Amino acid sequence: MEVNEILRHVDHTLLLQPSTWEEIRQICDDAVKYQTASVCIPPSYVRQASEYLNGKMAVCTVIGFPNGYMTTKAKEFETKDAILNGAAEIDMVINIGWLKDRKYDLIEEEIRTLKAACGEKILKVIIETCLLTKEEKVTMCKIVTKAGADYIKTSTGFSTRGATFEDVELFAANVGEGVKIKAAGGISSMEDAERFLSLGADRLGTSRIIKIVKQEDASGY
Amino acid sequence: MEVNEILRHVDHTLLLQPSTWEEIRQICDDAVKYQTASVCIPPSYVRQASEYLNGKMAVCTVIGFPNGYMTTKAKEFETKDAILNGAAEIDMVINIGWLKDRKYDLIEEEIRTLKAACGEKILKVIIETCLLTKEEKVTMCKIVTKAGADYIKTSTGFSTRGATFEDVELFAANVGEGVKIKAAGGISSMEDAERFLSLGADRLGTSRIIKIVKQEDASGY
Repeated sequence: MEVNEILRHVDHTLLLQPSTWEEIRQICDDAVKYQTASVCIPPSYVRQASEYLNGKMAVCTVIGFPNGYMTTKAKEFETKDAILNGAAEIDMVINIGWLKDRKYDLIEEEIRTLKAACGEKILKVIIETCLLTKEEKVTMCKIVTKAGADYIKTSTGFSTRGATFEDVELFAANVGEGVKIKAAGGISSMEDAERFLSLGADRLGTSRIIKIVKQEDASGY
Repeated sequence: MEVNEILRHVDHTLLLQPSTWEEIRQICDDAVKYQTASVCIPPSYVRQASEYLNGKMAVCTVIGFPNGYMTTKAKEFETKDAILNGAAEIDMVINIGWLKDRKYDLIEEEIRTLKAACGEKILKVIIETCLLTKEEKVTMCKIVTKAGADYIKTSTGFSTRGATFEDVELFAANVGEGVKIKAAGGISSMEDAERFLSLGADRLGTSRIIKIVKQEDASGY
């Protein structure tokens, strides 16, 4: 797979708590230069980044992140606020306690509420696979499909583990036709990136892939 | 210090992502039984816990938690939503990127906005000391004092480290008269709890202290 083709699937991501505007701006510049799918940044930087990018790159942000246990109303407000500020893509986290409690209706209703708030914008649903059983992951594939979200996403990058090949294979076997897959967390080599894509991922949440490409650029590769 | 006296300063806390209602209910029951200062739980459980407790125990919840980089508007909405659901105490996280960028006015304005949303309810400001320099911690003592919050709090429990004795000493030396101190994260023994209190902490965010007391109860101590 060509490097450009891989980059086209990357949500170039910076979600560390101490990130400054200079660091976010660098992420934006690199995303434009290397033509990634989007730049994924904290909500408080969405307006500034959107104005800075001025349509040259889609801005993705995170909602109810990373713990997922905010109220549905708060997640809905945060989604609308992010879209008003210029976000084109919304990565929400499900309420994992509700999943453990088998409150599937509440989870589905929350995803529907956020999809309604998104309108034409893309909604990705993070299920934090490292905290779930295989059965729970399969259940979430069905709920995400039924609720009409655009993507199911493996991980926040803030819990005990990131994406695994097995999770992406499981998603590919269990989501409905309209639902794409995003692998995120710990993707650290071109080989891994390519493998995630070949297994069915459509997006990759990572900052390291661009770092690798930049290093290769710098070394004249 | 008597055990009862220590318990009176504890925010009995459960903020793990997979927490079920049964686990939250147990935390509520224990808080009532052992007469802690409050029970500190995720926003999505505040209404249910408030109804369940029916005034027998103060409900504390977390806002912009744990990463702090939501917009001020989203944090304000989340605060109002939590208070409507029955929260008596609000533990917010500052925007750490803004602190690194020396955007002190934005941080102060955000705390003021949330204090206004709180009204008579208690506002605690988490500054996540493990990500800050000593100078930044002192700056935050001044901003929290100036903005009129009720408490400054060391940690979320979700970053690289929890409370340290040095941080509480630093807070005690630098906050204004009206501001109390909450130590949170990793408090794991009665000796530590007592030392945090003797150094100037007024609240302790922990779940382990109650576990220790329960074990001593069970062993007939």
